[in-house]
Amino acid sequence: MQQINVGIIGFGTVGSGTVEALIKNREIISNRAGTEVVIRKIADLDTESDRGITVDRGLLTTSSMDVIEDPKINIVVELIGGMEPAREYILEAMERGKHVVTANKALLAEHGHEIYQATERCGVSLAFEASVGGGIPIVRALRCGLSANHIQTIMGILNGTSNYILTRMTQEGHPYTKVVQDAVDLGLAEDPPTLDVDGTDAAHKLAILISIAFGSPASFKEIYREGISSLTPDDIRFAGDFGYSVKLLAICRNLGDRLEARVHPAMIPGDHILANVNEAYNAIYLEGDFVGPNLYYGLGAGRRPTASAVVSDIIDLARHIRLGANGIMPPLAHFRPPDKGILIQPMEELTSEYYFRFSALDRPGVLSKIAGILADQQISISSVIQKGREAGGSVPVVMLTHEALESNVRKAVSLIDQLDVVMDKIVMIRVENR
Amino acid sequence: MQQINVGIIGFGTVGSGTVEALIKNREIISNRAGTEVVIRKIADLDTESDRGITVDRGLLTTSSMDVIEDPKINIVVELIGGMEPAREYILEAMERGKHVVTANKALLAEHGHEIYQATERCGVSLAFEASVGGGIPIVRALRCGLSANHIQTIMGILNGTSNYILTRMTQEGHPYTKVVQDAVDLGLAEDPPTLDVDGTDAAHKLAILISIAFGSPASFKEIYREGISSLTPDDIRFAGDFGYSVKLLAICRNLGDRLEARVHPAMIPGDHILANVNEAYNAIYLEGDFVGPNLYYGLGAGRRPTASAVVSDIIDLARHIRLGANGIMPPLAHFRPPDKGILIQPMEELTSEYYFRFSALDRPGVLSKIAGILADQQISISSVIQKGREAGGSVPVVMLTHEALESNVRKAVSLIDQLDVVMDKIVMIRVENR
Repeated sequence: MQQINVGIIGFGTVGSGTVEALIKNREIISNRAGTEVVIRKIADLDTESDRGITVDRGLLTTSSMDVIEDPKINIVVELIGGMEPAREYILEAMERGKHVVTANKALLAEHGHEIYQATERCGVSLAFEASVGGGIPIVRALRCGLSANHIQTIMGILNGTSNYILTRMTQEGHPYTKVVQDAVDLGLAEDPPTLDVDGTDAAHKLAILISIAFGSPASFKEIYREGISSLTPDDIRFAGDFGYSVKLLAICRNLGDRLEARVHPAMIPGDHILANVNEAYNAIYLEGDFVGPNLYYGLGAGRRPTASAVVSDIIDLARHIRLGANGIMPPLAHFRPPDKGILIQPMEELTSEYYFRFSALDRPGVLSKIAGILADQQISISSVIQKGREAGGSVPVVMLTHEALESNVRKAVSLIDQLDVVMDKIVMIRVENR
Repeated sequence: MQQINVGIIGFGTVGSGTVEALIKNREIISNRAGTEVVIRKIADLDTESDRGITVDRGLLTTSSMDVIEDPKINIVVELIGGMEPAREYILEAMERGKHVVTANKALLAEHGHEIYQATERCGVSLAFEASVGGGIPIVRALRCGLSANHIQTIMGILNGTSNYILTRMTQEGHPYTKVVQDAVDLGLAEDPPTLDVDGTDAAHKLAILISIAFGSPASFKEIYREGISSLTPDDIRFAGDFGYSVKLLAICRNLGDRLEARVHPAMIPGDHILANVNEAYNAIYLEGDFVGPNLYYGLGAGRRPTASAVVSDIIDLARHIRLGANGIMPPLAHFRPPDKGILIQPMEELTSEYYFRFSALDRPGVLSKIAGILADQQISISSVIQKGREAGGSVPVVMLTHEALESNVRKAVSLIDQLDVVMDKIVMIRVENR
């Protein structure tokens, strides 16, 4: 049995988990890889902190170039995250003929094209299972398991932190700020968890899934993003009264000539399989033209789940390397990109159902004024409920609409917000019934 | 771009779906395979029936050997099912250097060892994604996606027909016989659906999952099997009162030195992710030592979902063949089988929690007599409910136990069944709380 040498750049949370898995499960990993998988170098600026695992100190270096330039290393594992120097390290490693494993969703979502091209130029493989859904093998499902299908729908709960926050808000009725503070205090969220809660992280992951599903790098910037910070326990409760759960969803729908691609809070029917994905779990719901509906569920982050994904990539690459089978699959699993690339529909052209909540003065004619604005924008109401009555004379009114055009909804919202009889800003949540 | 030629044996439901996918999705399939994938021959005794797809009649043959002996065919797809002649065809094809794709769970579960060995002898690959979970890429998840893990738990809803029947019994309260008859009438179940409802089909699939997870063929005969035909709507309702759903589960637990491997109706907590898998859907819940809990969900049978799995295998093999990368992975994804093979714990040694229901005469001392028998067998009761009162003087009593030993439970059941004061046979359902 020959030997495959791995160099790891980044000895933080995921790096430590990866080293731990490679050491603890060494026997089963080499059985499955068909070759010994050996850690040859680990680079991190901090070579002193205790990571809870025992590694030969001789493996540690503070210089990433020690890893990249080591001629004996077959696979470079990039686990530092972020744009630079991760991008530079990956490209340098590839130029030296090294295969690369990365968990870096932000980099792939924003600079994937350059990296995917480098694999071809350098004749190396790139694997990135850990970049989406932590331990859930969703990248493989799209690259291999569902390869016979045209993918029609992707709906994902792709950010564990925001799903944890929404679960607490739903179950305990606490406001967003309190739940976030608790999550930060418990070490479950970064302080502040901006990229998690504003939809950026989920949009990075959606960009990667779309790129694989459709064979061409998706433009991250064209993916609409809206976060969860303005959601209230009231809206979550009202949604529940209508039979819906509120989730931060990353959604892609294949419209034939173009794609919907968007991340925002959404109401989904309580009996949808995604509605019961709670706490920090992630899940990806997919539909393909042959396979029908599929769901993949698991822990979307954390030291050990993410390490599971990183090491599965190392094993796959080792299987290829021992046979000299480079280029067995391009990064996006398409040998020919689609002719016209990926066209993302502008958000204004979305058609969807909507939930609105506004506080209106409790006096005659108010609802008819609002209904008139909606009607002018071709928005038809499917149900409306007035929720009790407040001391100040204003009442919360919630309504659901039939399918309407996003640009019309935005116009209507802006007009209603200008009415004297409407207190506070109107709340709008998209409803996913399809 | 070169060309990979496929020969299909069996033009039934799955065969038709496979041909349909290869024709309809030809462009995306060749993009993803890196080569044209061409159907060269289709063998079936019936070459006349309309399958709803147009194929060149010149491709059809009534002789499977026409496929197996065609020197231009790279991949033989066996879709006739059953033992013989499927086994012979697969081995003959391999001897001629052909890679094989099969959906044949019964054959792999009962004669897998011989077929796995043949791949090595003949230097060919075997792929069988469609053998478990229909379109769900669960075989790949175990072969690749979770390869860094020791698998600790597998809990699967692996038979769509029995899950459909249980869903109807749960939602409508109808008895087993009526629901089965409806399912047969609607074309949703075979008449009679013996292997689906008696646990055999699920046990075949569990044997395959265990074989991949642990790298050695599991002995199908040692997997305990119990079907759903004796379940009543009453028991399902009582289970619901305790907060449980009743599912036909295929369960494997890694006990370290040996495995639990069993298929039987089981009560699972209503908030377990498997509890909400309804209708004809399949789902596999897994735990690995690094990845933690994972769930895979989708349609476990049917023409198009199963074709999705078959064609994904064809694409993977084509990717390998074009690089001459045979043997990139052994069938069970382990290059070295584990030293001591797979040891399955005898069912009598299982420890589990249990649900009992019996009809006892409503007179003093009866419950204490039953409790005495249970106590003698070290079975301790965690909760007991007397369910109303019947005209004839007997009352249904349901109870849940703490963990107990299966052999003790069987003894207790047999002793209680002999009591004069107990009408009907006692009902026992295992409870999965872990």
